[in-house]
Order: sequence, then structure tokens, then C-alpha cells
Amino acid sequence: MSLPVTVLEAAKARGVMIATAESCTGGMVAAALTDIPGSSAVVDRGMVTYTNASKVEMLGVAQSTLDTYGAVSEEIAAEMATGALTHSHAQLAVSITGIAGPGGSEHKPEGRVCFGLAGPDGVRTQTVEFGARGRASVRAAARDHALGLLLGALTEA
Amino acid sequence: MSLPVTVLEAAKARGVMIATAESCTGGMVAAALTDIPGSSAVVDRGMVTYTNASKVEMLGVAQSTLDTYGAVSEEIAAEMATGALTHSHAQLAVSITGIAGPGGSEHKPEGRVCFGLAGPDGVRTQTVEFGARGRASVRAAARDHALGLLLGALTEA
Repeated sequence: MSLPVTVLEAAKARGVMIATAESCTGGMVAAALTDIPGSSAVVDRGMVTYTNASKVEMLGVAQSTLDTYGAVSEEIAAEMATGALTHSHAQLAVSITGIAGPGGSEHKPEGRVCFGLAGPDGVRTQTVEFGARGRASVRAAARDHALGLLLGALTEA
Repeated sequence: MSLPVTVLEAAKARGVMIATAESCTGGMVAAALTDIPGSSAVVDRGMVTYTNASKVEMLGVAQSTLDTYGAVSEEIAAEMATGALTHSHAQLAVSITGIAGPGGSEHKPEGRVCFGLAGPDGVRTQTVEFGARGRASVRAAARDHALGLLLGALTEA
């Protein structure tokens, strides 16, 4: 069974709706989930916040956090995930912000991706260095990692 | 040159930012555009509005339009595209709402997809019957059709 199917079935079994807040993956997590028939029972909405302004306006990310830590940071990932939760009817939200490449930016290396996971118990963040393996590969790996985070949250005791 | 690359180069040459409002494609148009390096110069944001509530809340679609015409209608496609424009800093927005299947809904056939294209000259809509060719195929065809609409708008005189 594919990862999106597993996530959807776990969410459906628990009556949980999901929201996504994506920067470097640009909608790939939402697209993967909605690729599955019946996903409308689980997918509430997705925000593709590519610009800093969209992160502020759609998710309520603080400009001061962007200024202090940069868009690719666990601080922003946390605010994106929390913002996705408060700006939706979902009970679980995942966020992705990273440097897909080619090349680094903000003095941060290509392949660095920060994730946030917000739910009833608060928000957790994580940074993964996928390395300079190419834009498509970093994006696909980040998508799958985000799906894994959702699954983990849905299946923990 | 791939369709997303062509769209991005045409938009970049004209200084146009793009927003997307996606229902049945669930983020695939945004994902295709952001797959291209340098897309941050062109992609403003994307709204994946899978539920009716998200269409109302993120795009300003009227509940009365949903009640009267259903989510899969040119009326809703028009309001989604216009809403994406007014809820972003983009100059051009495309919307997609359809029935990817399997099976029809709202007494409408599987494979019917409505598109909206909003820009400085107003909004245009279109319905395409892709037919019951399977969920993945309808979604991919709808994604490419939306990209074609963007390209058309960017390259007309």
C-alpha cells in the first residue's frame, strides 16, 4: 500500500482532517494525498506559500520570525504548521520549508528542509539535510518525509 | 521545453506573478510550476481548496453560488480564479474544479472539469469533458490544460 493511501486510511479511521502548508514542495504533499479516491474525507485544504508574503498572509507567520531566522528554519516551519491548523478546520497539519536547489540560499545548504507537525498536542519540528541530490529528488524526499510525519502522528499511541 | 518551463519563461518575461486555486487537481498545477528552478520569481501562491468551506474561506467563493450551481461549475471556477487574484499579489490566476472520479457526483459526469482564468481583463471560464478515463489521467489532463490556459493568457497579443 502506498504511503498516501496509508496516511489517508489512518486519518479516516481516526476521523482526522489534514491541512498542508508547503513551500519548497509547492503542493506535492497535497497532490499526493488527493491522488487517492476518497481523499475528500481527509484533506481539508492546502496552502502553497511560496513567497514570504504568502506565508505571512495565508498562515499568519510573523515577519519578525522571517527576518530573524529566515524562511528555511524550524521556527518558520513551526509557525507554518500552527498557522495551517488555525486557518483551517483540520486537526493535523504538516509544513515543509526548504532549499530544493540548485544551489543554497540564505547561507544555508542545498537540500536542507525543515518540517513542522501541528496537532492537538502542540507543534513539533525537525530539520533534515537531504543533500545536494537535485531539485526533483529533494522535493520527492521531502514530500515522502512529510507524509511519514503525518503517518507517525496518526499511528502513535 | 516542457509546458511548465514555457509558462514560467513567458510569465517571467512579462513580469507576471501567478496564483493557483485547485480543487480536483489538489496542488498538481502549483507542484508542476514549482518543479522548475527559478519558479519563485513567478509563483506567488497556491490554494488547494478541496472542501467547500475552504473555497469560501480562502477564496471568497459565495455559499449561494455553491448551493445554486455546485462546486463543479463554471460559476464556481470563475469565483475561485477571481478569489485567487484578490487574495494574492498575482496578476494572473487559474482555477480548476472538477470530478476526477471514480464515479460522478452532484449528478455530473466523471471527467468533467471546469476552469477559470482571471487577469487584468476579467475572468474567463471553460468546461472540458475529459471522460471516465481514470482519476490519475483526468487529473494530469486537467493540470496540463490549466497550464495551457496560463500560457495562452501570457502569449496573447
